[in-house]
Amino acid sequence: MSNPIPTNVAAVDLGSNSFHMIICSLKDGKLQTIDRLKEMVRLAAGLDENKYLDSATQEKALACLERFGQRISNFPPNSVRIVGTNTLRLAKNAHQFIVKAEKALGHPIHIISGIEEARLIYQGVAHSLSSNANNRFVMDIGGSSTEYIIGKQDIPHTKESLNMGCVTVSQSFFRNGALSKKAFKKATLFAEHHLEPFQSTFNSQHYDEAIGASGSLKAISNVLETSGFSNNGITLDGMEQLVAHLHTLDHVDQISFPALSIERRPVFIGAVAIVYATFKTLNIQQMTVSDGALREGLVYDLVGRIYNHDTRSQTSQIIAERYHTDRRHSKQLKETMRYMVAQLEHHPCFADNSASLQFLEWAADLHEIGFEIAHSQYHKHSAYIIENGDLAGFSKQDQLILSRLVRSHRKRFKESRFEDLPPPWNKHTTIMSVIFRLATLLHRNRQAVRPDFRIGIDGKDIELTFPEAWLEQAPLTCADLKQEAQYLKEARFNLSF
Amino acid sequence: MSNPIPTNVAAVDLGSNSFHMIICSLKDGKLQTIDRLKEMVRLAAGLDENKYLDSATQEKALACLERFGQRISNFPPNSVRIVGTNTLRLAKNAHQFIVKAEKALGHPIHIISGIEEARLIYQGVAHSLSSNANNRFVMDIGGSSTEYIIGKQDIPHTKESLNMGCVTVSQSFFRNGALSKKAFKKATLFAEHHLEPFQSTFNSQHYDEAIGASGSLKAISNVLETSGFSNNGITLDGMEQLVAHLHTLDHVDQISFPALSIERRPVFIGAVAIVYATFKTLNIQQMTVSDGALREGLVYDLVGRIYNHDTRSQTSQIIAERYHTDRRHSKQLKETMRYMVAQLEHHPCFADNSASLQFLEWAADLHEIGFEIAHSQYHKHSAYIIENGDLAGFSKQDQLILSRLVRSHRKRFKESRFEDLPPPWNKHTTIMSVIFRLATLLHRNRQAVRPDFRIGIDGKDIELTFPEAWLEQAPLTCADLKQEAQYLKEARFNLSF
Repeated sequence: MSNPIPTNVAAVDLGSNSFHMIICSLKDGKLQTIDRLKEMVRLAAGLDENKYLDSATQEKALACLERFGQRISNFPPNSVRIVGTNTLRLAKNAHQFIVKAEKALGHPIHIISGIEEARLIYQGVAHSLSSNANNRFVMDIGGSSTEYIIGKQDIPHTKESLNMGCVTVSQSFFRNGALSKKAFKKATLFAEHHLEPFQSTFNSQHYDEAIGASGSLKAISNVLETSGFSNNGITLDGMEQLVAHLHTLDHVDQISFPALSIERRPVFIGAVAIVYATFKTLNIQQMTVSDGALREGLVYDLVGRIYNHDTRSQTSQIIAERYHTDRRHSKQLKETMRYMVAQLEHHPCFADNSASLQFLEWAADLHEIGFEIAHSQYHKHSAYIIENGDLAGFSKQDQLILSRLVRSHRKRFKESRFEDLPPPWNKHTTIMSVIFRLATLLHRNRQAVRPDFRIGIDGKDIELTFPEAWLEQAPLTCADLKQEAQYLKEARFNLSF
Repeated sequence: MSNPIPTNVAAVDLGSNSFHMIICSLKDGKLQTIDRLKEMVRLAAGLDENKYLDSATQEKALACLERFGQRISNFPPNSVRIVGTNTLRLAKNAHQFIVKAEKALGHPIHIISGIEEARLIYQGVAHSLSSNANNRFVMDIGGSSTEYIIGKQDIPHTKESLNMGCVTVSQSFFRNGALSKKAFKKATLFAEHHLEPFQSTFNSQHYDEAIGASGSLKAISNVLETSGFSNNGITLDGMEQLVAHLHTLDHVDQISFPALSIERRPVFIGAVAIVYATFKTLNIQQMTVSDGALREGLVYDLVGRIYNHDTRSQTSQIIAERYHTDRRHSKQLKETMRYMVAQLEHHPCFADNSASLQFLEWAADLHEIGFEIAHSQYHKHSAYIIENGDLAGFSKQDQLILSRLVRSHRKRFKESRFEDLPPPWNKHTTIMSVIFRLATLLHRNRQAVRPDFRIGIDGKDIELTFPEAWLEQAPLTCADLKQEAQYLKEARFNLSF
């Protein structure tokens, strides 16, 4: 059921300012970039007051994705990762847009949280730098969010994502491109306000070097260096000079530097305000820019998945431990589910789809984490944490699938819980859930003993065959199976045994 | 604002089988029982299929509570604790009943979770026994739930509450009092099924002595000893003999033992099935019964509150630590809130009501626990954990009040969030929430510095007075206060500063 290792891999980042695509060849576990595409779609600017993405912006975005799609639509599914960030997190009509965008790209789009974005950015940056045993600070200005991370080597240990970006700050404080000292002061105050609760967490005393990722920071660095405001990346002194210069202008159209593309002009001022506020609040003197960014982080994460080092499996283990779950029990459940899935390899839910089994294993790890909140209704608490939690490696869709599996692992069984999941999961999860329920039922006593039973699923008919006389000696399991047959009837399944 | 120490204290347990009241004198921190009342109201039997408490049972219960009320209605508020358990947890019309019951008793009724019930039972039992350094197992059969606890000295470390009790098991498996071997087998299977996931957790290898609390267990012990089935409390051998005897009968009316009251007869068989299943599943050979029970646990908890050892404050500290909150920040918030409340001692919310400040302090401890789930919307996650969590010492109502305070400590302010809280909290929490919001606002930068400001609240007018020129030097706080004035306007408050 596992897929062959692809020769090329691609990552697409549907950012709030730019869309990026990176394609790499993958040989013996080594990556080489073979293509990069970037378009400033400025998605965040298309969000109206009611948080709807307007149709002009949607069209512009889809036209770009059509071009991206031509390059990657025929890539195998396991070789592509596409993520959407803050604007798609916020847009109320994101779902409609995503359906069209997925058609254009030929691959699913995953929405990720700000914290996951921060993790991936750090990963992208860490890979682009030489090894260094000290703490690093990384900052990335997006179109509508800015990420701050402190990490060591390739481990980010402090992550934050704030709702301010170069597009949104430029739009909110510099209407129609008008510049003024007062507007700039308001914009920096806005950024300082967002940073205020984190001023000690991210203070420069906690790290030795500050690194900037993203086009905005590169542009600022280039402008400072080519204008002679700095000769060492972004410096506080250079920023003061740049700000003083900008205060002499009335309109963004007057911002003219050889190192600044005309395209970036309208959102440059917002980025400057964010950087200026960041330097002052966190007491940063100097920042170097890096080539690594979200898309590189995505590629590394994808390669991990291809070579069976899936971040999500690591996360499941970490969270399961943090919530003191019964690991022996989870292990038993996984073994029994693998035993069942091996018998169902021709079922559409498991054929060519090792992800189904992966999700079941994560569900086994995490289904009892809610017990730490309360014993009563613990499955609902587990599902709440999984749906809302910061789970490294998981997209919002992944979390929803996992959350629904966990929510449905005991008591009443409602198929409607799976309806709103993205295809094919809206269909698969019903069967996956049945497998998970049967496994927990068979291990209700938390004993390792499992009979060598057979399972067959044909449409809505589920047949379990136990070794002769086994069931008579297990009256509790027998009673449980009878109850389960009743529960499954609600979803028109016939369970026989 | 703190209350004088009462001379008498009372605890009432509105159990699913019996209502109990205990009154003790309190002198120099020492308790002496001066009165006990008990009525078998059998609340659980009044719950219909749709989980509504029928009116006949309600009337019976209220008549009993009128009698209880005559004894305690004039007790000062801090000297009485009244709790409702499983039937009131489950009844859909519990709220209506509780309003009438509170009127009859002259004191508020708090609904507690099964786990809290288990904790209080253990506390009641532990106080009644001599000190013993080994692990103890305690079991309590209620009308519709059974609690299992393992603890050492006065600390319960494993607690469980299962949805099966003497009333519900008797009713479900022995309809109209009919006895049969088959029915008894089904009833024990039902109890074994509930215990199955915990058979290793509560297995007798984990403790040296098993103790039974509750009238049902006392009755079984008495029956066994007076019938010569056992000479040492409840034994497995004695239970086998009792069960064999019961198998010779056709109807509960035939169950006749001098040690068994006629009143208890209809629910005796359910208790026997639960005990028999428990002994077999957990491999228990012998159990001693104890006089301590929920009501005694309640009294000890109450005395703790009176002498400023409130279990709830301990719990807040433990949970805050478990979720790795910023303790220094919580301390700052508490200091600033005490500073404000000291200026508002004539406000109805704080006059004669030290509980308001207590809730605010717990809110300061717990408002950021949700950060461990996710950074985004952490206040909602904190509120979720507080509302649904097993929080020792807190009743369901306490948790709701605290949860709403935490939910409302930032962003939009909706008075409607407090509407469904029990009076006077539906009014008080609005003001308390304003205090909490202002404290978090003033410490947004997590610095200890607080100006010596004045606060005045007159109806909907809130006035803050800062030292001269202080605000000019704090542009971020100034911006925050302007924003806060906007938020509070939604609840028709006028914030001036």
